[in-house]
Amino acid sequence: MAVYTAVGADALAALLARYDVGTATAFKGIAEGVENSNFFVATTRGRYILTLYEKRVAEAELPYFLALMTCAADARLPVPRPIVDRGGEALQRVAGRPACLIEFLPGVSLDQPTPAHAHAAAGELGRLHHATAGFAGVRANALGPAGWRALAGAIGPLADEIAPGLAAEIAAELAWLEAAWPRALPVATIHADLFADNVLYLDGAVSGLIDFYFACTDLRAYDLAVMLSAWAFEGGDYRPDIAYALAAGYRASHPLLPEEASALTTLARGASLRFLLTRAYDWLNTPPGALVTRKDPLAFLARLRHFQAAA
Amino acid sequence: MAVYTAVGADALAALLARYDVGTATAFKGIAEGVENSNFFVATTRGRYILTLYEKRVAEAELPYFLALMTCAADARLPVPRPIVDRGGEALQRVAGRPACLIEFLPGVSLDQPTPAHAHAAAGELGRLHHATAGFAGVRANALGPAGWRALAGAIGPLADEIAPGLAAEIAAELAWLEAAWPRALPVATIHADLFADNVLYLDGAVSGLIDFYFACTDLRAYDLAVMLSAWAFEGGDYRPDIAYALAAGYRASHPLLPEEASALTTLARGASLRFLLTRAYDWLNTPPGALVTRKDPLAFLARLRHFQAAA
Repeated sequence: MAVYTAVGADALAALLARYDVGTATAFKGIAEGVENSNFFVATTRGRYILTLYEKRVAEAELPYFLALMTCAADARLPVPRPIVDRGGEALQRVAGRPACLIEFLPGVSLDQPTPAHAHAAAGELGRLHHATAGFAGVRANALGPAGWRALAGAIGPLADEIAPGLAAEIAAELAWLEAAWPRALPVATIHADLFADNVLYLDGAVSGLIDFYFACTDLRAYDLAVMLSAWAFEGGDYRPDIAYALAAGYRASHPLLPEEASALTTLARGASLRFLLTRAYDWLNTPPGALVTRKDPLAFLARLRHFQAAA
Repeated sequence: MAVYTAVGADALAALLARYDVGTATAFKGIAEGVENSNFFVATTRGRYILTLYEKRVAEAELPYFLALMTCAADARLPVPRPIVDRGGEALQRVAGRPACLIEFLPGVSLDQPTPAHAHAAAGELGRLHHATAGFAGVRANALGPAGWRALAGAIGPLADEIAPGLAAEIAAELAWLEAAWPRALPVATIHADLFADNVLYLDGAVSGLIDFYFACTDLRAYDLAVMLSAWAFEGGDYRPDIAYALAAGYRASHPLLPEEASALTTLARGASLRFLLTRAYDWLNTPPGALVTRKDPLAFLARLRHFQAAA
């Protein structure tokens, strides 16, 4: 939740001069995302986000993300379009960082989406899977099963500082998932992080799907499982009405194969473990004084246990 | 440079419903200011900043700041207007914090203003002094001479960790200023922190004067001295052309009495010490891991020495 790199008015003007977007009328750093520096840019012609990619994002992967967003925007999905300069280039350098000027999408993310909101968002996920079916880019999921084992190893016995017995519980779940993972399911380009804060709404309709920087090539149904683990709980309680709306919304725009549907609970266990692990790692590695909101890992331990019991 | 308090879409909608401002079409935390949490709010009717006042701002002083901004906006100064709800109230509570919805002003602050920019900004300062001449509010300057002594005491010998000999240099300057301070000069409502990052420009003209949360009742000419210490240096070098433009711009919109003009160097020593002290205090009290940009105190030591030599 911070801007890591400062961008001055001169650097901004020099950047904008490369495009046909007019001149700046407003420029504010945005406290959004923990990975990158983001700025709101209004110009005489439109509204944009300027993103500077900080070191946690691999520069070599940026063309993949920008091409994917462009592909989805071309398909009229509500995905922010990377703006190209007069030379056709989207990827720039600003203040020594790789950077991109990106379309600003209107809308507000919801903290407590209703089943109708969930239905609409999952419908957009299905449309995204259609839109990217011909997308040529490939990116391995660094936070898939192989990544979980590496993360669990990096956390090690320190997990027990978060909750007694957590290290053993992670190890057992990891072993179970590695054996049970449905590797034969269809693969697609997936968003892989479609939490409610990555979906914008305007008048109840989805106006934006954002934050594609975890997108990758992985099991298509895993994307819906991420949504199940992220959306279908309120406080500590499972919300079956939202889970139902997610599946129904997805099916309304994209087929869900029988073998995908029957694997959803296993995939949701994987998704819960993935967010438990990354949050636990960040929890243990964020200095207490840092002005970054540490997200509670235990919320996803509870969700993991829910899907274990449902299996 | 962070958002300290989260505001959800429901809380935002409930707040906006109190006003005649339409409904939210965009909502982003802004990485601006180290004192408060700020959000960019676009609605169907306009653009606003939502500010939540965190604990460093005394709640009892907020009516003063909001009344002052309203007074200046009423006088058609480019000062962001606090928006009142249907009951006529500007000050609200959001997420347990005092809060205010404030007009969003277009424009971009400049990192290297030219003499023409400085002239225009100082002209707005003069207009602000005219506009607030009838303003009834009174607020002591907590960061005036009495505050400097308290700050110097809180820093103590730790100043020498920033630069060897700094504690003694601060003590000597403080003693000199307490004796030489021109207490008989005219008093006014002053901004007291008009750095270049608090001035917005659009097409070369001033479109905004922002951040009134250090405003107070103090020597009127001290406001211009703050600008001299803040604007008239580039890197380590004094910029006499900018200093001249500041004084000329101010005189173009407001009289500068002979006794004010002759006291400017002393006042600028005071302003330099003020920013040296607050930056030194923050430097020593900001944890290294915190995602707040620590501003270099030594830049203002160099400026203090410049004005000492000029005296």
